[in-house]
Amino acid sequence: MTDTYSQFVNSPLGKQVASRLGIPRPVRLRRYTPGGALLEGSVLLGGYGDAPLAKRVRAVLDAEGIATATEPPTDGRVAAVVADLSAMTGPADLEALRALVGPALKRLAPSGRVLVLGASPEQAGADPVLAAARRALEGVVRSIGKELRAGATANLVLVEDGGEEEIESTVRFFLSGRSAYVDGQVVTVGPAGAGRRTPQSWVAPLAGKVAVVTGAARGIGASIADTLTRDGATVVCLDVPAAGDALAVVANRNGGSALQLDVTSPDAGARIVEHARTRHGSLDVVVHNAGITRDKLLANTDAARWQQVLDVNLLSVLRMNEAILAPGALSDGGHVVVLSSMSGIAGNRGQSNYAASKAGLIGAVHALGRDEDLRARGITVNAVAPGFIETEMTGRIPLATREMGRRINSLAQGGLPVDVAETIAWFAQDASAGVTGQVVRVCGQSMLGA
Amino acid sequence: MTDTYSQFVNSPLGKQVASRLGIPRPVRLRRYTPGGALLEGSVLLGGYGDAPLAKRVRAVLDAEGIATATEPPTDGRVAAVVADLSAMTGPADLEALRALVGPALKRLAPSGRVLVLGASPEQAGADPVLAAARRALEGVVRSIGKELRAGATANLVLVEDGGEEEIESTVRFFLSGRSAYVDGQVVTVGPAGAGRRTPQSWVAPLAGKVAVVTGAARGIGASIADTLTRDGATVVCLDVPAAGDALAVVANRNGGSALQLDVTSPDAGARIVEHARTRHGSLDVVVHNAGITRDKLLANTDAARWQQVLDVNLLSVLRMNEAILAPGALSDGGHVVVLSSMSGIAGNRGQSNYAASKAGLIGAVHALGRDEDLRARGITVNAVAPGFIETEMTGRIPLATREMGRRINSLAQGGLPVDVAETIAWFAQDASAGVTGQVVRVCGQSMLGA
Repeated sequence: MTDTYSQFVNSPLGKQVASRLGIPRPVRLRRYTPGGALLEGSVLLGGYGDAPLAKRVRAVLDAEGIATATEPPTDGRVAAVVADLSAMTGPADLEALRALVGPALKRLAPSGRVLVLGASPEQAGADPVLAAARRALEGVVRSIGKELRAGATANLVLVEDGGEEEIESTVRFFLSGRSAYVDGQVVTVGPAGAGRRTPQSWVAPLAGKVAVVTGAARGIGASIADTLTRDGATVVCLDVPAAGDALAVVANRNGGSALQLDVTSPDAGARIVEHARTRHGSLDVVVHNAGITRDKLLANTDAARWQQVLDVNLLSVLRMNEAILAPGALSDGGHVVVLSSMSGIAGNRGQSNYAASKAGLIGAVHALGRDEDLRARGITVNAVAPGFIETEMTGRIPLATREMGRRINSLAQGGLPVDVAETIAWFAQDASAGVTGQVVRVCGQSMLGA
Repeated sequence: MTDTYSQFVNSPLGKQVASRLGIPRPVRLRRYTPGGALLEGSVLLGGYGDAPLAKRVRAVLDAEGIATATEPPTDGRVAAVVADLSAMTGPADLEALRALVGPALKRLAPSGRVLVLGASPEQAGADPVLAAARRALEGVVRSIGKELRAGATANLVLVEDGGEEEIESTVRFFLSGRSAYVDGQVVTVGPAGAGRRTPQSWVAPLAGKVAVVTGAARGIGASIADTLTRDGATVVCLDVPAAGDALAVVANRNGGSALQLDVTSPDAGARIVEHARTRHGSLDVVVHNAGITRDKLLANTDAARWQQVLDVNLLSVLRMNEAILAPGALSDGGHVVVLSSMSGIAGNRGQSNYAASKAGLIGAVHALGRDEDLRARGITVNAVAPGFIETEMTGRIPLATREMGRRINSLAQGGLPVDVAETIAWFAQDASAGVTGQVVRVCGQSMLGA
């Protein structure tokens, strides 16, 4: 899907309509193109104390030929500000963040990036001073996200002990156009269970991998298939038999295979493993994207409506994962990604069943993220929670509601399916081995939440 | 403060204005009055399996003379529905929640209560099925909160192993009018470090206790002083010398003492301890309510503006806590409560400094909540995060913005200072010994969040 909304609103007619309605025009977000620069411009780099993580970021930028500076420019723009606060010992040290980032905000280029790196407040133990300083970063970063304009974003990466070596894929994700619609988020990077595996090429980080995408016939699922293929994977496109024709189109354009299968069938997991391994030699990535809604107030939701949504969205995923995560099925070092939802985080009127299923997936991801056995095998399990994404489905929402939905976020626009897909592609990289048990919203920092 | 907004909107003139503007009139919320009934009407009680926590709730209701039923009434209203899902083993068991609560929603009285009890997903370890079922409750409860009308609320209490004995004060809080503006929240109750202490009277649960409230001269702080006094405590009202006259009024009307003190002075903690113990014989409860704002975009925030807010709102609290939590200062079994904010959770444009301080407090509360030493001493540390509360301060916000702020929550109105105070009074009870490290929003289930 092209960015039709942004194209329309920036067209002569669209400009007229938007200005009559008094809506600010959203900017065109910088998105990723293979072979394009990680960032267009220089990066301001600093932090507190000896800022050990900033040094690692500098090495990444050096390798990409991107200039770095430790002082804000007196004129011109910076493409990004990276602030490493991981060495803070207390809240007084937060001044280093203000001093570095504050003055630079006026110099930040359109679709610029503020990336803050910190240590994990959870790992501050019972020390309230250390925990306060580390947790404070979240308040600052979320406030910066709401202050930024012109497609710029602010995100926070918390690095656990032993995770220092594992940050490169995550830093690249947040600086690049891949994270266009990811804003105001907090991601934790920890040690990699089975060792980090830097890709031979950052343009094809999934080269040689076999990925399965459920619900791949259309919408976000089709975009995930396209994006994983673009990044080098061989993709098994899975959907129900009824979607067979659309599925074949997606599978064919990606040179992948189609697998017609109902995810709720008891042997769905076994069949996925069998198809991938027999047909393509391995199973490395599984994206549980298939899902349904059966919206109604809970007061009017009967057992069937409740059951159906839980079965398709949650129980089937748990059942498939049993087969997929069994030894000898998903490769060691493999990746599972589930599609949660903002409903699963904040709840939603008339979506009790859907919210139950999507919150349940978050519970499952947290549990699998702390599974020592999976960690030892280097298997990661993560979730994306999309906000307002421009799809056929959201296209059917009445105009005023739709316009509200797409505007109440810091980027003042809806996201595209590819924005969800890019986030999944980052989770799916072997270089993201330190990222597990995470839930990342792809919502342009929606104002809505819990 | 009386509920002037609700009075106005429900007056003949207010009705006219509200209907011209197309705003639905918010209902008058049921609030607590000492000696009043816990609930007016009967309670529907059930859950999954043998619902062990529901039995405990029934004992509480029996003692209060409140009728319980296990089937929804065919006519008439229920005052509350209590659903115990703690015995679930997987997401299929969630059907018991739908079957009990769904049909009852149409029978729920104005200002009714949906209270769901579950087990902790964190304690599901690496079991994704169990974790999914437990976490799903959060999605359902938040959705129910958004579905309810007429001042009814939905909340979720997660009970950790060993916390089963500790739920009474929390169940009473959520069923009563004390929790009028607490909606869509998730609270965890764990084992009590130094043993539960049931109060002699639930009407004066703080009898014999000495509480210190900072920033007590006005607004929310004054309401906290009033409310803790009403619940039986002797209150030390603390504020800066410049607020001396207003402070004296609050201290006098509550029969407490006034302590003029700048919370940022290095010896503030020691002076609080000394004043309380010398003047009143002990120190049992401390409420860190004092706080300031110095709003500006981060791009324009200088070091002084940054420092001031962090110093008053965060660093002073950390410093005072060192003295207060030292052995022999705060009584064993004592309680510390801090005022966080929705800014600290979601960030806020133009409030980077304030959000840093309020997020930092959350970090400190989490750290102190897992402090084994404090747990052994039975000391709890919790935070409230107010949403839109009707105060002098919010009264100065321009009408349209103010109206928006107070309406974008499930109860469609702003809260009152007493709503924040009631939540603090619940934390401050010795019967709440199992509640620590918690952050509870008092926001009417604001749509805003992270």
